[in-house]
Amino acid sequence: MNIAILFGGSSYEHEISIVSAITMKKVLKKSTLTYIFVSADREFYLVETEKINSKLFSSGEYKKGKQLTLKKGGFFTEGMFGSKRVEFDVTLNLIHGRDGEDGKIASLMEFFSVPFISPRMEASALSYNKLYTKFLAESLGVKTVSYEHLSKNDERKIEMDYPVIIKPVRLGSSIGVSIVKEASELDYALDVAFEFDTDVIIEPFIDGVKEYNQAGCLTDAWELSIVEEPQKEEFLDFEKKYMDFSRDSQVLSADISDELKEKIQQSFKKIYDPLFRGSIIRCDFFVVDDEVLLNEINPIPGSMANYLFPDFEGMVTRLSRALPKEKNISVDYTYIHSIQSAKGKA
Amino acid sequence: MNIAILFGGSSYEHEISIVSAITMKKVLKKSTLTYIFVSADREFYLVETEKINSKLFSSGEYKKGKQLTLKKGGFFTEGMFGSKRVEFDVTLNLIHGRDGEDGKIASLMEFFSVPFISPRMEASALSYNKLYTKFLAESLGVKTVSYEHLSKNDERKIEMDYPVIIKPVRLGSSIGVSIVKEASELDYALDVAFEFDTDVIIEPFIDGVKEYNQAGCLTDAWELSIVEEPQKEEFLDFEKKYMDFSRDSQVLSADISDELKEKIQQSFKKIYDPLFRGSIIRCDFFVVDDEVLLNEINPIPGSMANYLFPDFEGMVTRLSRALPKEKNISVDYTYIHSIQSAKGKA
Repeated sequence: MNIAILFGGSSYEHEISIVSAITMKKVLKKSTLTYIFVSADREFYLVETEKINSKLFSSGEYKKGKQLTLKKGGFFTEGMFGSKRVEFDVTLNLIHGRDGEDGKIASLMEFFSVPFISPRMEASALSYNKLYTKFLAESLGVKTVSYEHLSKNDERKIEMDYPVIIKPVRLGSSIGVSIVKEASELDYALDVAFEFDTDVIIEPFIDGVKEYNQAGCLTDAWELSIVEEPQKEEFLDFEKKYMDFSRDSQVLSADISDELKEKIQQSFKKIYDPLFRGSIIRCDFFVVDDEVLLNEINPIPGSMANYLFPDFEGMVTRLSRALPKEKNISVDYTYIHSIQSAKGKA
Repeated sequence: MNIAILFGGSSYEHEISIVSAITMKKVLKKSTLTYIFVSADREFYLVETEKINSKLFSSGEYKKGKQLTLKKGGFFTEGMFGSKRVEFDVTLNLIHGRDGEDGKIASLMEFFSVPFISPRMEASALSYNKLYTKFLAESLGVKTVSYEHLSKNDERKIEMDYPVIIKPVRLGSSIGVSIVKEASELDYALDVAFEFDTDVIIEPFIDGVKEYNQAGCLTDAWELSIVEEPQKEEFLDFEKKYMDFSRDSQVLSADISDELKEKIQQSFKKIYDPLFRGSIIRCDFFVVDDEVLLNEINPIPGSMANYLFPDFEGMVTRLSRALPKEKNISVDYTYIHSIQSAKGKA
């Protein structure tokens, strides 16, 4: 199969997306990979698979590659003798953060009828925003960590006991996130968060909380990853967190009871189906007093969480054959015809 | 000002969008209009303003016009001597239903840096889905009509007393909507609704409920329309409802107290700001026992609700100068450089 890897984007996680994309070479070995780079100013470039490395981008050398135009049916090179479609079977959206996770890439792919692996637009809009993720989870009967919500112009007052964790609602990867240990630190942490977003959520910071990650997708059947207990630090800063994005070797399953595993998987399935069909996502859960709480949805997880799956490449292939179809709407101009004939009679 | 009217789309409301678009000629008289038609199969065509009429589309004659390509900075004609940008100052998104209201057009315009009047992607995703609209309103402290939610595979059981109204969550314009007077009619009404959508909401049907529409936008100040009490029928079917889309003459303000008007306007503002900045929307409210309840948000109202505003054209001009700016994200490859220098040392 020929998989087009879409990466880069106008995002704080642009560089991380490059790391994720390069990692795919190591884990999608049987497939042909077609690399399509979205530059920081949102031009599309075809990048030769053999040449790909991080320096190609930081040096700006990628600009020597072919520039592409997105049109109905795919990406095209434009030349003297007309335009030529870049051949591939499916795109894999690997753009983390803005553009990739907020629904723009999903919209583009759907509008131009390009088959794609990614959360669809609506799933993206809800999971990109941590406040809307709360609404979604609640409506599906999945519990989340308790929270408060503040907008930029709200009075800076919270009800919750300290320590708390402050998160901009729309960004991934710990950007703008702070742990606030006492009231005197609140103002500064909010200043930082509001640098990045108009809205924040505030959650209790639960020291030593048990955290488990579950990734997966629905092909012709459920394909769930192992449950991972991620390595613990107080919280991961941008750089540490993103060494993760080059991961390509399998990790061990968390040592948990079958009952807990079952609870985590049930919660994952509730979130995933049907909204996230067509995508591979990772959900991060907390377990507090034996209760499974959704912490966050990673709609485009680092390196697609490949290291959690026994057969990542096979799964990508199966998923590409099980993508949701857009409903066909036929436009037959009945209504306009009927107005015209009514006018004709008048 | 030169306003590009974007209309058509792959939508059940494709034809209605054509009617809305033609109406703009009658209400945007001082502006230059550039008509860009999105065909049912999502190709872009430039349509000459003098030639525009409904038959041009139903006959397929629009295909003789210039086809356009959407690229960074705008829509382009492609010819022997390279591509040429279609000149305009701003696009006005007039695509009702799918593509226009679900966030796809907003995504396209934002991605390709084309200035546009329309709800942005996140606002679109939330207001296109009546269930998510409930979540949104609740989080903003705006009350809505009570409801139940059913997915396609759920048991077909409701708690509410009859009569009820069944609405597919994602469609506008009364498509798939039924009033159900007793339990024996429920199954058929759900069959109809599930033809169009995977999810429905069920609300009490309140006979003779007072309904009021408020449209508006935020330019350098609030520009709120008069409050309209729409003419009443049991409920409007597709055709009747859409005679509305060709409206171009002012209507009278509803005869309500200043206090009620103030409540309606406060609710409108809570919904609108900041999520809907850059758009002209209409909110439809019910008043039950003196309480103002949001019934629905019309993110792209028929003919832009022009007939509710004293100076529609002036408002469009002012709004085009007050569009929200996307946050600029600069990518400097610091992270990749630091990995490279770390590797170099190893």
